[in-house]
Amino acid sequence: MTKIRLNDTTLRDGSHAMRHQYTEQEVRQLVRALDDAGIEMIEVSHGDGIGGSTFNYGFSRTFDMDLIEAAAQEAKNATIAALCLPGVGSEHDMEEAWNRGARIMRVATHCSEADVSINHFQKAREIGFETAGFLMLSHRLEPTQLAQQARIMVDAGCQCVFVVDSAGYLVDEQAAQRVRALYEEIGADAQVGFHAHMNLGYGVANSVLAVQNGATQIDGSLYGLGAGAGNAPLEVLATVFERKGFDFGDVDVKAVQDAAEDVLKPIAPRLPRMDRGSIVQGQWGVYNSFLFHAMNAEERYGVPTADILAEVGRRGYVGGQEDMIIEVALALRGQQ
Amino acid sequence: MTKIRLNDTTLRDGSHAMRHQYTEQEVRQLVRALDDAGIEMIEVSHGDGIGGSTFNYGFSRTFDMDLIEAAAQEAKNATIAALCLPGVGSEHDMEEAWNRGARIMRVATHCSEADVSINHFQKAREIGFETAGFLMLSHRLEPTQLAQQARIMVDAGCQCVFVVDSAGYLVDEQAAQRVRALYEEIGADAQVGFHAHMNLGYGVANSVLAVQNGATQIDGSLYGLGAGAGNAPLEVLATVFERKGFDFGDVDVKAVQDAAEDVLKPIAPRLPRMDRGSIVQGQWGVYNSFLFHAMNAEERYGVPTADILAEVGRRGYVGGQEDMIIEVALALRGQQ
Repeated sequence: MTKIRLNDTTLRDGSHAMRHQYTEQEVRQLVRALDDAGIEMIEVSHGDGIGGSTFNYGFSRTFDMDLIEAAAQEAKNATIAALCLPGVGSEHDMEEAWNRGARIMRVATHCSEADVSINHFQKAREIGFETAGFLMLSHRLEPTQLAQQARIMVDAGCQCVFVVDSAGYLVDEQAAQRVRALYEEIGADAQVGFHAHMNLGYGVANSVLAVQNGATQIDGSLYGLGAGAGNAPLEVLATVFERKGFDFGDVDVKAVQDAAEDVLKPIAPRLPRMDRGSIVQGQWGVYNSFLFHAMNAEERYGVPTADILAEVGRRGYVGGQEDMIIEVALALRGQQ
Repeated sequence: MTKIRLNDTTLRDGSHAMRHQYTEQEVRQLVRALDDAGIEMIEVSHGDGIGGSTFNYGFSRTFDMDLIEAAAQEAKNATIAALCLPGVGSEHDMEEAWNRGARIMRVATHCSEADVSINHFQKAREIGFETAGFLMLSHRLEPTQLAQQARIMVDAGCQCVFVVDSAGYLVDEQAAQRVRALYEEIGADAQVGFHAHMNLGYGVANSVLAVQNGATQIDGSLYGLGAGAGNAPLEVLATVFERKGFDFGDVDVKAVQDAAEDVLKPIAPRLPRMDRGSIVQGQWGVYNSFLFHAMNAEERYGVPTADILAEVGRRGYVGGQEDMIIEVALALRGQQ
């Protein structure tokens, strides 16, 4: 049986749900709990990757690099990863992340734009990172097209390409077929990963299907803390993987359940869930990190979050177009 | 394509999550919203069925029958259902429910005890009810054994037998195989239904699998309001069924999403979720309505809810043995 690595992204995707307000102390607590539970990889970055702390994406309370360094100091066995979106995070940022202790670099692009990751992968490998690629909003490409984008990443030095369901849009075979297509295209040269969101209630089921179709890295986060409806909850993944008899290393399932309840829950001011806004994101395929931007726009312009997100979905905006959310809200207000 | 009926149980299974404190006003609001959204069947009862308002199960704020009557008055198109557990609800209670306007009677037994439902089904049919049977904790029997229990119900006059995943224990093919086995045994004579819980994140995925394996009635509740980790959220089921192209009548998906957000959420003091207690229930197969009983025991005896539930799971207690939860808590306290 193939070994599966259960990755934690509470400190990266979960940063969205924390409005990027993690303190160094909280990061240390969470890394200790995850590391003690046997989680082997812990991602730490602004929700939009290193360098994401900006007006457009939202400012972090604590500088990315300080959080990465704190995490690396705490982790006895786990490896610290960072996320980088080309155009947001620079090659210099990647070097800095290495110097602070990150050893895995995950480079994310919109699913049809893998070519913008090429220089980043080459640089990341030169620095010495283990690498992974994120094809965001993977539902926007058919499986064979998606696999071609994965091939571009692998040829550039990427060692694992993730089908990233950034909107929680994919429903069972839509996820399975994409993972399978990537596995057939790159399986001889690299791993396949899956990164779920819960918008339509399929985060756990899709992750299991991903394993059954060749994925060997699965992302989750404590209590599902993450953008939109949140990620597949790490503690549920661990519980279900145990039931399924998957080999996922020496993860202590009870310790993961306890980390969620005793460490994460007291920290998080708001736990994500399938509410109207996030269900609409799953329904229309809207980038999950847009949720809080739309909630802010509702507050400012009085247009319902769900209506803004549905219209964003109809217009097909992708990550990086956060500023268009305000335009949509203004347009909808004009129609009222 | 077979028509699926999407049943709502916000006002019955959801009663657990409300600690049975629904007011008549709240019931009227919810029935109006569900009826307007095109939901065809709305179940109204104490969480443990008509007559459940007792010391053992928890007292209702408002008498079952008054809530049923209010619901029947509000519903323009929807049919009102009630739940009855033989031994808790009597044949007299069923008559009273009919007189107050219920037209569907769902009779629930532990999965291996279908024979205790025989008199209730005969009586319910005599009264004139459409009938359904609930095989609770369905994971405790193998698919073929479960199908034999379903046959007993059908022979007694039951028109639809539900695979009831009372612990949210079932994971994909475990649900699919049980639905399929029932469909093969009773499909010529009666319908098959599926009633999910979210404990391991499979409520929506299992419901879709149930439809694909022959189920034609699927239960859900607004925001998943229900025992334990809650039910499959009705608004997510509607959104996913639309994606899947299922025929589920004239349900207005957006109106269901709005009913959850605008009507249910402001009413519910606590929305269920996959937390440690409810994940442990799914992991160990513990009856979901035990959650609050275990939380009460934690408060009284200082033993963690999750530890109590895991021990209840090891001992194999089923619905009706609520009083044993205190014994478990005391035993665990003794060990501390």
